[in-house]
Amino acid sequence: MRKNKKERQRLLKETITGTPFITDEELAEKFQVSIQTIRLDRLELSIPELRERIKHVAEKNMEDEVKSLPLDEVIGDVIDLELDTSAISIFEVKEEHVFSRNKIARGHHLFAQANSLAVAVIDDELALTSKAYIKFTRQVKQGERVVSKAKVAEISLENGRTVVDVNSYVGKELVFSGEFMMFRSNTNKG
Amino acid sequence: MRKNKKERQRLLKETITGTPFITDEELAEKFQVSIQTIRLDRLELSIPELRERIKHVAEKNMEDEVKSLPLDEVIGDVIDLELDTSAISIFEVKEEHVFSRNKIARGHHLFAQANSLAVAVIDDELALTSKAYIKFTRQVKQGERVVSKAKVAEISLENGRTVVDVNSYVGKELVFSGEFMMFRSNTNKG
Repeated sequence: MRKNKKERQRLLKETITGTPFITDEELAEKFQVSIQTIRLDRLELSIPELRERIKHVAEKNMEDEVKSLPLDEVIGDVIDLELDTSAISIFEVKEEHVFSRNKIARGHHLFAQANSLAVAVIDDELALTSKAYIKFTRQVKQGERVVSKAKVAEISLENGRTVVDVNSYVGKELVFSGEFMMFRSNTNKG
Repeated sequence: MRKNKKERQRLLKETITGTPFITDEELAEKFQVSIQTIRLDRLELSIPELRERIKHVAEKNMEDEVKSLPLDEVIGDVIDLELDTSAISIFEVKEEHVFSRNKIARGHHLFAQANSLAVAVIDDELALTSKAYIKFTRQVKQGERVVSKAKVAEISLENGRTVVDVNSYVGKELVFSGEFMMFRSNTNKG
């Protein structure tokens, strides 16, 4: 149902506050208006565009700093990080990430997002992947945003091996899952 | 033992014919001369540089053509390909492929080489990865060349699932191994 402008803008603000990573396209569909209308609404309400919102959330949410590699070597934008516990990143699938023929995202980019997040979550200067068991559960298309969630499942005190589970989603759909066995130089957490 | 120029050039020619993917650095070490000397020897003998030799071998050896994706979408140089049977590619680890801190190759590049070779070997227009079990067995450093060998282990006639085993080497050392479960649209081979 279409709403009047005032009501729509109120709900728009509410929606973006609740789900800051919603795109203008998704908002346009939700409120049954054009993307242009959403952009004008955001302008009037002084709500920054998605990319800016992601950055803002990133700055606010990062409890810790990535230790194992420079932040710009993580594939995707890290928006949440708690070392040796969990991490979240967002990766936008662009033209250079898909097969030219069918616009399906190439597997190694989804792998790169998940693997670099598994490295980033480790509370150590040195973190390397030793093994991984991965599944591609749904094709990802150009233009979709992949949200990766890493959870540290196990840290072995003896040999420093750390198991990181990573699940990646487009909306609520699981598109990739991986279990990464990581090697680290030291075990900082007991 | 150092040899005189004539003898060295004779052995150099013989060595390159037998092992065309040997680098100038490796040749310099083998003959205990400088890399510059090897380059001059090659020039005098009209032996092209490694990259050109790889291309040449590629043109000669490819029995089949990649079907599942454009050749330039394969990560690394495909130097041998027999569809639904086996494939070989060479990937040079450069500065942009390593962690800045320790110059160790990032896992997703080794994965990308292996995974794209697993796609390339499939005799079908559509080939997608469904699952993979991978191991990183030895760190790869900047400047090393990784030779990936893919073998089609199993093709299911019922559902078109194909299992591709990929082993990647630096010299004789295994650096990566992966078992890739591939999905394809049709099963062309019975």
